[in-house]
Amino acid sequence: MTRDPREDKERRETVLRTETDIIVRSTEIDVNGHVNNAKYLEYLEWGREDWYERMGFPYDRFLEMGYQTVTVNININYRRECRQGDRLTIVTSPLRAGRSSFALRQEIFNQRGELCTEADVVIVTMDARTRKAREMPEELKKGLNGESGRP
Amino acid sequence: MTRDPREDKERRETVLRTETDIIVRSTEIDVNGHVNNAKYLEYLEWGREDWYERMGFPYDRFLEMGYQTVTVNININYRRECRQGDRLTIVTSPLRAGRSSFALRQEIFNQRGELCTEADVVIVTMDARTRKAREMPEELKKGLNGESGRP
Amino acid sequence: MTRDPREDKERRETVLRTETDIIVRSTEIDVNGHVNNAKYLEYLEWGREDWYERMGFPYDRFLEMGYQTVTVNININYRRECRQGDRLTIVTSPLRAGRSSFALRQEIFNQRGELCTEADVVIVTMDARTRKAREMPEELKKGLNGESGRP
Amino acid sequence: MTRDPREDKERRETVLRTETDIIVRSTEIDVNGHVNNAKYLEYLEWGREDWYERMGFPYDRFLEMGYQTVTVNININYRRECRQGDRLTIVTSPLRAGRSSFALRQEIFNQRGELCTEADVVIVTMDARTRKAREMPEELKKGLNGESGRP
Repeated sequence: MTRDPREDKERRETVLRTETDIIVRSTEIDVNGHVNNAKYLEYLEWGREDWYERMGFPYDRFLEMGYQTVTVNININYRRECRQGDRLTIVTSPLRAGRSSFALRQEIFNQRGELCTEADVVIVTMDARTRKAREMPEELKKGLNGESGRP
Repeated sequence: MTRDPREDKERRETVLRTETDIIVRSTEIDVNGHVNNAKYLEYLEWGREDWYERMGFPYDRFLEMGYQTVTVNININYRRECRQGDRLTIVTSPLRAGRSSFALRQEIFNQRGELCTEADVVIVTMDARTRKAREMPEELKKGLNGESGRP
Repeated sequence: MTRDPREDKERRETVLRTETDIIVRSTEIDVNGHVNNAKYLEYLEWGREDWYERMGFPYDRFLEMGYQTVTVNININYRRECRQGDRLTIVTSPLRAGRSSFALRQEIFNQRGELCTEADVVIVTMDARTRKAREMPEELKKGLNGESGRP
Repeated sequence: MTRDPREDKERRETVLRTETDIIVRSTEIDVNGHVNNAKYLEYLEWGREDWYERMGFPYDRFLEMGYQTVTVNININYRRECRQGDRLTIVTSPLRAGRSSFALRQEIFNQRGELCTEADVVIVTMDARTRKAREMPEELKKGLNGESGRP
């Protein structure tokens, strides 16, 4: 499968990209003096919640439409440690969209603009009742593909 | 690079494989009624602590030898949800060993023996002072390769 | 109001007293190397869940009866620090029972039998629908007063 | 012991009172849909860290002076539940100061100005080496008594 690079570029410019600002708190630091591995997954979830909200798909709306989303894979690289008081920015944007699953790319930067963590998160859209994979809402797919604002 | 499958089988039989038993507690459950994604990374860390301990490499011993270990990548699949009161077993064993890094395979099973989560965790051995990658202790490498008990 | 001390003694011997055994895990340790203050409140909740379960009042049964319980006050003394690997026992027993509220006394001991933490927890029984205080189920009151097993 | 009420009023006006703003995040919500009891103790710790920082007594400075602080009692009232997305303000101010212990009053308000939680927190100043109670630094005592800015 070949892709026209110009399409990719255009896609990157039109998809929704959110930034969530947080401060590293004392109880998020482990015995080594830095943010614990597991805590970053909470940070990423906070970023995704913002992204869903801005995309017009908060948790409640999914439910109203009969959907639930389930995270099935997270692949996370820890590049640089974070410490108490650090001001972090969680950047979330779509990576790809399939029929009943999609992936988000998430990155966490510190106050010096250094990349601390990056993760790809794969999510499946499920029928809330049958708990089986179900083709995602058209509007979500358009948003993931950066087509939401087109005429 | 080709491997003799008999070697792989032998390796699997001689490396250290630990099991850590836990009970899912109420505060580990999120608003959806199941264990939160981030919590599984804590479970995995508890399993690794047991593995290091049994391997003869608790945190303090690494430090005494001038080492620190840093987790650089976790790739986790969420296969089945866990709920309050579930009795989980975290299984930890080595996957591969390099010069200054190694990987552990971790799996979480529930009380019915169903696989709930599986993850590969990549860890780098660092010089505790310079904070740079440093060749791992010979004894750790042997343990990772299942050679510890040989004459 | 005066009480017959013999009644108090008898009450202490007949009320339900549960013990919950846990191991302090690495991610429960803060930068100071001991269990974080907030974590003890999770331990106490785990103890109360066991107590409710054994009392015959798990969360679901309260809901079926149209009740919810709400914790309104916790008064906790931190007496001795706990560390990774410590084997703790959370002891939970009723302290007093009113019309629509009751108190539990909870204590956490370490593997040497030393008292680490003690807390009184005040809980209100609410109507699940109106969210207003509501007289507790008779069976719960009897259990809190140690009368459950009497002829 | 009688106090001149005018002194109390003056004290309240001169002591350091900090406000810490936070947003309730998804992973802080429990199965009941509101912030878990234990989480509030983390919020309070975040507030105290800000207070210490503004008071000129961050953790490191205590250590340099040979001190550690230990929380020995928390008495917390839960008045109103908090939910995901709520914007909370943690207000921290001194309540009283003794020789080697002091108390802080902490309150958490939501975005509608409603009091959600209030707690008194008792802290002991210890010698970092002997781990025994030790008279607090004069500068801290003055700050707790609202005398820091006087001629």
